[in-house]
Amino acid sequence: MKKVIKNGTIVTAADTYTADVLIENGIISLIGENLSTQGAEAIDAEGCYLFPGGIDPHTHLEMPFGGTVTKDDFETGTIAAAFGGTTTIIDFCLTNKGEPLKDAIKTWHAKSNDKAVIDYGFHLMIGEVNDAVLNELPSVIDDEGITSFKVFMAYKNVLQADDETLFRTLIAAKELGALVMVHAENGDVIDYLTKKALEQGNTDPIYHALTRPPEMEGEATGRAAAFTGLANSQLYVVHVSCAEAARKIAEARDNGIDIWGETCPQYLLLDQSYLEKPNFEGAKYVWSPPLREKWNQDVLWNALKTGQLQTLGSDQCSFDFNGQKDLGKGNFSKIPNGGPFIEDRVSVLFSEGVKKGRISLNQFVDITSTRVAKLFGLYPKKGTIAVGVDADIVIFDPTVERTISAETHHMSVDYNAFEGLKVTGEPVSVLSRGEFVIRDKKFVGKLGAGRYVKRAKYGANKHAKESETLTF
Amino acid sequence: MKKVIKNGTIVTAADTYTADVLIENGIISLIGENLSTQGAEAIDAEGCYLFPGGIDPHTHLEMPFGGTVTKDDFETGTIAAAFGGTTTIIDFCLTNKGEPLKDAIKTWHAKSNDKAVIDYGFHLMIGEVNDAVLNELPSVIDDEGITSFKVFMAYKNVLQADDETLFRTLIAAKELGALVMVHAENGDVIDYLTKKALEQGNTDPIYHALTRPPEMEGEATGRAAAFTGLANSQLYVVHVSCAEAARKIAEARDNGIDIWGETCPQYLLLDQSYLEKPNFEGAKYVWSPPLREKWNQDVLWNALKTGQLQTLGSDQCSFDFNGQKDLGKGNFSKIPNGGPFIEDRVSVLFSEGVKKGRISLNQFVDITSTRVAKLFGLYPKKGTIAVGVDADIVIFDPTVERTISAETHHMSVDYNAFEGLKVTGEPVSVLSRGEFVIRDKKFVGKLGAGRYVKRAKYGANKHAKESETLTF
Amino acid sequence: MKKVIKNGTIVTAADTYTADVLIENGIISLIGENLSTQGAEAIDAEGCYLFPGGIDPHTHLEMPFGGTVTKDDFETGTIAAAFGGTTTIIDFCLTNKGEPLKDAIKTWHAKSNDKAVIDYGFHLMIGEVNDAVLNELPSVIDDEGITSFKVFMAYKNVLQADDETLFRTLIAAKELGALVMVHAENGDVIDYLTKKALEQGNTDPIYHALTRPPEMEGEATGRAAAFTGLANSQLYVVHVSCAEAARKIAEARDNGIDIWGETCPQYLLLDQSYLEKPNFEGAKYVWSPPLREKWNQDVLWNALKTGQLQTLGSDQCSFDFNGQKDLGKGNFSKIPNGGPFIEDRVSVLFSEGVKKGRISLNQFVDITSTRVAKLFGLYPKKGTIAVGVDADIVIFDPTVERTISAETHHMSVDYNAFEGLKVTGEPVSVLSRGEFVIRDKKFVGKLGAGRYVKRAKYGANKHAKESETLTF
Amino acid sequence: MKKVIKNGTIVTAADTYTADVLIENGIISLIGENLSTQGAEAIDAEGCYLFPGGIDPHTHLEMPFGGTVTKDDFETGTIAAAFGGTTTIIDFCLTNKGEPLKDAIKTWHAKSNDKAVIDYGFHLMIGEVNDAVLNELPSVIDDEGITSFKVFMAYKNVLQADDETLFRTLIAAKELGALVMVHAENGDVIDYLTKKALEQGNTDPIYHALTRPPEMEGEATGRAAAFTGLANSQLYVVHVSCAEAARKIAEARDNGIDIWGETCPQYLLLDQSYLEKPNFEGAKYVWSPPLREKWNQDVLWNALKTGQLQTLGSDQCSFDFNGQKDLGKGNFSKIPNGGPFIEDRVSVLFSEGVKKGRISLNQFVDITSTRVAKLFGLYPKKGTIAVGVDADIVIFDPTVERTISAETHHMSVDYNAFEGLKVTGEPVSVLSRGEFVIRDKKFVGKLGAGRYVKRAKYGANKHAKESETLTF
Repeated sequence: MKKVIKNGTIVTAADTYTADVLIENGIISLIGENLSTQGAEAIDAEGCYLFPGGIDPHTHLEMPFGGTVTKDDFETGTIAAAFGGTTTIIDFCLTNKGEPLKDAIKTWHAKSNDKAVIDYGFHLMIGEVNDAVLNELPSVIDDEGITSFKVFMAYKNVLQADDETLFRTLIAAKELGALVMVHAENGDVIDYLTKKALEQGNTDPIYHALTRPPEMEGEATGRAAAFTGLANSQLYVVHVSCAEAARKIAEARDNGIDIWGETCPQYLLLDQSYLEKPNFEGAKYVWSPPLREKWNQDVLWNALKTGQLQTLGSDQCSFDFNGQKDLGKGNFSKIPNGGPFIEDRVSVLFSEGVKKGRISLNQFVDITSTRVAKLFGLYPKKGTIAVGVDADIVIFDPTVERTISAETHHMSVDYNAFEGLKVTGEPVSVLSRGEFVIRDKKFVGKLGAGRYVKRAKYGANKHAKESETLTF
Repeated sequence: MKKVIKNGTIVTAADTYTADVLIENGIISLIGENLSTQGAEAIDAEGCYLFPGGIDPHTHLEMPFGGTVTKDDFETGTIAAAFGGTTTIIDFCLTNKGEPLKDAIKTWHAKSNDKAVIDYGFHLMIGEVNDAVLNELPSVIDDEGITSFKVFMAYKNVLQADDETLFRTLIAAKELGALVMVHAENGDVIDYLTKKALEQGNTDPIYHALTRPPEMEGEATGRAAAFTGLANSQLYVVHVSCAEAARKIAEARDNGIDIWGETCPQYLLLDQSYLEKPNFEGAKYVWSPPLREKWNQDVLWNALKTGQLQTLGSDQCSFDFNGQKDLGKGNFSKIPNGGPFIEDRVSVLFSEGVKKGRISLNQFVDITSTRVAKLFGLYPKKGTIAVGVDADIVIFDPTVERTISAETHHMSVDYNAFEGLKVTGEPVSVLSRGEFVIRDKKFVGKLGAGRYVKRAKYGANKHAKESETLTF
Repeated sequence: MKKVIKNGTIVTAADTYTADVLIENGIISLIGENLSTQGAEAIDAEGCYLFPGGIDPHTHLEMPFGGTVTKDDFETGTIAAAFGGTTTIIDFCLTNKGEPLKDAIKTWHAKSNDKAVIDYGFHLMIGEVNDAVLNELPSVIDDEGITSFKVFMAYKNVLQADDETLFRTLIAAKELGALVMVHAENGDVIDYLTKKALEQGNTDPIYHALTRPPEMEGEATGRAAAFTGLANSQLYVVHVSCAEAARKIAEARDNGIDIWGETCPQYLLLDQSYLEKPNFEGAKYVWSPPLREKWNQDVLWNALKTGQLQTLGSDQCSFDFNGQKDLGKGNFSKIPNGGPFIEDRVSVLFSEGVKKGRISLNQFVDITSTRVAKLFGLYPKKGTIAVGVDADIVIFDPTVERTISAETHHMSVDYNAFEGLKVTGEPVSVLSRGEFVIRDKKFVGKLGAGRYVKRAKYGANKHAKESETLTF
Repeated sequence: MKKVIKNGTIVTAADTYTADVLIENGIISLIGENLSTQGAEAIDAEGCYLFPGGIDPHTHLEMPFGGTVTKDDFETGTIAAAFGGTTTIIDFCLTNKGEPLKDAIKTWHAKSNDKAVIDYGFHLMIGEVNDAVLNELPSVIDDEGITSFKVFMAYKNVLQADDETLFRTLIAAKELGALVMVHAENGDVIDYLTKKALEQGNTDPIYHALTRPPEMEGEATGRAAAFTGLANSQLYVVHVSCAEAARKIAEARDNGIDIWGETCPQYLLLDQSYLEKPNFEGAKYVWSPPLREKWNQDVLWNALKTGQLQTLGSDQCSFDFNGQKDLGKGNFSKIPNGGPFIEDRVSVLFSEGVKKGRISLNQFVDITSTRVAKLFGLYPKKGTIAVGVDADIVIFDPTVERTISAETHHMSVDYNAFEGLKVTGEPVSVLSRGEFVIRDKKFVGKLGAGRYVKRAKYGANKHAKESETLTF
């Protein structure tokens, strides 16, 4: 059935205006003043913003890690995402060295197929580059529609790739039209500092931060940027946490290197002192890169404002405090790394960013949705509110005041890292391809209704004429 | 009568999609698939882009300067602008020290009232800050809708203001909600170098460039940025021509200063060697800041791409080669400073920027229209294609190949600085508030049809809720 | 009579070694092991360092300023200097616009002739550049041996020169072989901020600092550096107080500009909070540039260590707290600007710099003496301990611990800005051209024994062969 | 027998003055005017400079490399060094993983014992850090007097160490008082580029440069600097060849990191185009890092001038063109890497640096001798001309004009990379500990007369009082 959303204020990455929206067959077909609701369901959005559904470029659902598995799977994770105003996620598909990439992708499809309530895609981890991998990549891109590859510069002896692997991935990506993503921390040094801290009996959560210093994130970011420039390729740096890394990205962009940076809500709001909470509660704030000294937050906000950083990922990677995080009692290096952010990503940026005047409303949409869609080949099917686009729409009340809490959140994890944070604004209803997933703050979606999305190559744009290869 | 533009590809600062556009009463009222043309005039835009009309933030029409008057007035200037896809200009209203600001504004209204074929606004020059000026400013902003003030750091003994004036203008602008614009070159040093060059018998046009070195543009830009940071105010640097100045703006933005930079098509395409053309032809390329060494062009293009520079002005300030420029034969300092760019600004950026892959299509729209509208208080009435917005629309054929020439241009000046440049793309038709000004490449507008536009304060946005004061 | 200094550890800007020193006719004639003391006075320096006498490049003795005159004149000032291990000063000779430069120099000779107990030279203030000034300069350099010119960018309507004057001074200096010195603060903005603060009733000493923000020192420093680069001239920035200014100097040096920076002991040790001392005591710490936030001290120390700043001046400009500083009660702008540092300059750098491991012993000598001698044309007659050089020698006991206090200092001023500071090290005896001025911590010199020193041109070096024009 | 050098102009890192020098027992015992020559051999140095003997911090004599051995051994190498004005070298002692460090040192002593004609020390390569290595290091430092360790970031699968090894070496060095040296190029990327170039049939010498891009030297330099800052240790970057690397060092120093940079004469004078010489002659210019584009030379010169780079090494590593370099015909990666510079290092810096006004005479001495002595624990026995110091003295005629050529040089290699270069200045006589090695341009030394020198720890200085630990 057709739907008409009435009287909402539409916000795109460029524009803010009030109009009605007609949805047919899951697609936005008409935007205008005083649209007729005849033969259509009318939805009143008076006083609300209509945002394009958030796109979370960075999630780890049901992922094995550190001897356990992330708590939220594609069911609880995507439901929570939807509550938070996110209608598409791109999850990281881990691979194993020596095994076909397709096997890993198959495993990930199996995790998500029957569970996801919103649309989703996959990034693919590259742990090694050899003939077998190079032979498989074209099919990964063309058949699976996976056009972004993740390389880890940290997690020595586990996920970490060496410099040659990163460099060759960049070259392959350039040739094939994919975007390389890096986790930029120097794993060698971190590994050594970790061993040394433990030897010295320094086992508390705070040592997680102290053994992963910002200098080593800056170093790895600079290294990856240098490789990108040399390979004339493209790079996306995930979870930028500190001034050192943000600066390296800015410098590279000044030098004409095609590099992009993502930060996360946790780095914008929380700081290193959280890891010192008593009773092992610091473990709730253990992820990588770690939280930094508070002054870094201003640098990251300014970088979002000036466009030196472009996107916000949740880095959703949730573990229960009881039963999972406590694996690291007495040894910080065994605390499962990660936190629960898939639900609050959009709201927190709106409240702390837009409401506090740090970024504009349009930048907010760009950062949480449009830019992500463009970088990862989802645009223009997703990432905006315009005629012909998937009706992934968030009806957002910008005036509600509420408090984030594990008691009310929808993730399956037993704590919320923003517990007690007062935010302004909340998604009231959320549509995925024209169907309600959240309606009046209640989940009304269906397991498995989310579709896997094959993504276009980096830089492709179906609307572009022949020579216009830049999407951005 | 209603109009429906069919099958065009709408481009905004964020989005690119194909849809029909309904115009009623000069306003865009509906955007959708397969709009009915019943009761409306149908305009076919198949294969064309629909751009929001260009907004030129920097023109000097019928302006007395250097003992003469710029050749294009509000008639020829706005007609040429329309041919080039520009539907709004903001012209600089010069003031005289000791005289009421209102008198100058009155003079400017008299120049434009009966002539302009497209909409227009005024920036106001501030040459001094005293009680009289401070008393008048609130009314200038509230009654005249002039919300941007221009201060000259160059043209010693003519237009140049001292540091105290610039600083106080920044403070006043902060308090009143206006944006300060600077011409950033060190006038003292330039004045000395000019006198010295002439003393040494160096009178050719090239000495115009050699006596206005890029270091002195960088210096003045850095100085103005430092004042802005200290005053916690806002600044817009006009006509950034070189790496030195672009770098100062980028640094200031990194430091959280609210500063914006405009470049011009001439700096993106032409270089200092043009001033050495024989037979005094170098004089055609004399304006301030001067053309720079060619390598600066890459820096400027990259700055547009990464967002370190945000807009493109024409700095239209045309003088005939014969009869005006030749005032400076034998003395480069008497060559009237300026060139004719109002007509080619949009086309050149499309052809050299988008077509050559230096910037994206959406960036092109942002740079030529949307960002200008937002910075100068025209948004959301102008600057985008969306429901409720003025139907200032350019129907642009991106495939036409043509050659820029004084023989075919519509400015009244006797040469074109881009003579012989092959460009791809051309406005086919141009609408101002829903009425054709250009139709099928012919002028069909009316003198005086252009309206004076009162502009909103800097940072104001009628769609913003209470605390959302950032428009950008 | 000949003198032999036995067993001291000689320290130069490069070397540290133990040897005896023979002095004949005021000149060092022999350095060696176990020199014979026959026919010579033997002076034991066991356990002591022998430093080349300190050279203070920045003093204001008996200078009219702010409606009063600096308290220390060439008698008390040079005696205090000698006590502190300084054997040469270069004092600033103020000029008046419209009057011959020679008149000002004559005035300065009159102040110093019969009083100075150590050698001295003059810098000359340039307040305007016109034909009269340009005609006089060659004689100032050649006949008076004044090879450094000071330009003020601050003190509007009093000492401040405009940009053209600074630029032309740089050009003249280049041609004539002189070094330009600048007081780099933006006088226009400071003047405005001062007036505004007073209007708002903000009259306490702390407003002296708040109306002279570091951004305006950085701005002026960058401006002067840009002028220097353009003029291909040479610049010495006096009293660098903050990170902003130090950074501009470093950048300019990276770009190949011939620029040097001086800091002062007060900026290395004291901070802005001193201006908030109660009972108007903040006035004791009022000088320009003002004291800065404490973190700047680390930046300045590192700049000395890496060579981005090269010298230490005292900026001696003393006023009594009672009877002079109190002219500014109720109006900070009337507090005479300046403080008493001529006596403690060397000791403080030794104690806080060398003893605390921030700079090396050789750097200490370079900073307090050798580099100053080289930059200002005193080298090689002064500035080192070597055969053929003036026997200006400080016998320094590096182990004494003492407390700086107005009760024990030798300046004629009624307070000491370092009151209570514990320092290690003290000059025991001080020789000027082989004669004791201080002996065993007692003054034994004679008024008028100090000689006026004509200085060589910038870059000249009598030992250099034809093409070796760099002294540094 | 005593010697008196008469009438020379003594030059130290700080001073330039004319005096006589008395040498007794190999030590300088007296410096003065008109020294008596009674009972001493008089040596006339009228018109000549007396420089402290050059200290070459970077040589590879008789070193196995690339399937061959460097052509110059400790006999020909040190004779050539002496001819060039160098009186001490520090050679790199290579180690093998898994073997005791002492074995390698023993091997190096065997190479040098009976051959060296001037004094010498060793740096020690660190290829791995494990308990065995850590256990041996204290004895290496204390017993062998080897206080500098070299880590290679390039030469994958041969010399290259991983990041953990470099980081742990920095930590060990900090604890033990040693200086870490790095060859900073990214070996992983270079290895890949090399394989790829060869696969594509790109086998000519120029591909040596093209597969080792400056970005990868900058990257590795930045990485090593970041490690040093984190470890709070000390680093010396050998053979800085390009702007990218020089910039990283400058930035690190600005941030307070204890880092030093060495460049080589080849990078100051030659450029990448030399590798394109026909007839495989490009192979003569193959070493690592490779020669760069010419504009880098200005950056390196300015860095020497401003102190961002501090020393000059020869990186002597000579191979005959015929019989050695030609191993790489048809495969640039098999060209033995290295060139012959031990003889011309000092002369070239004097002629191109001092004579051309790029650096001062005193800086020249600091760069070629004093700073090296201080950094590597040779000072104050060596590195200056002062009482009590080893009489390692170069009598240098600054007026001779001559042409560098393989026909006249004293290295045993069959070409000279500076062939045909006209230089001004030449060592006339060279003394090592008071004995002539070169006299009137003839070799008069003895094989084996050079002594092995045990070096002091980094930062130690026998003249420093308790807390003065900085030598520099």
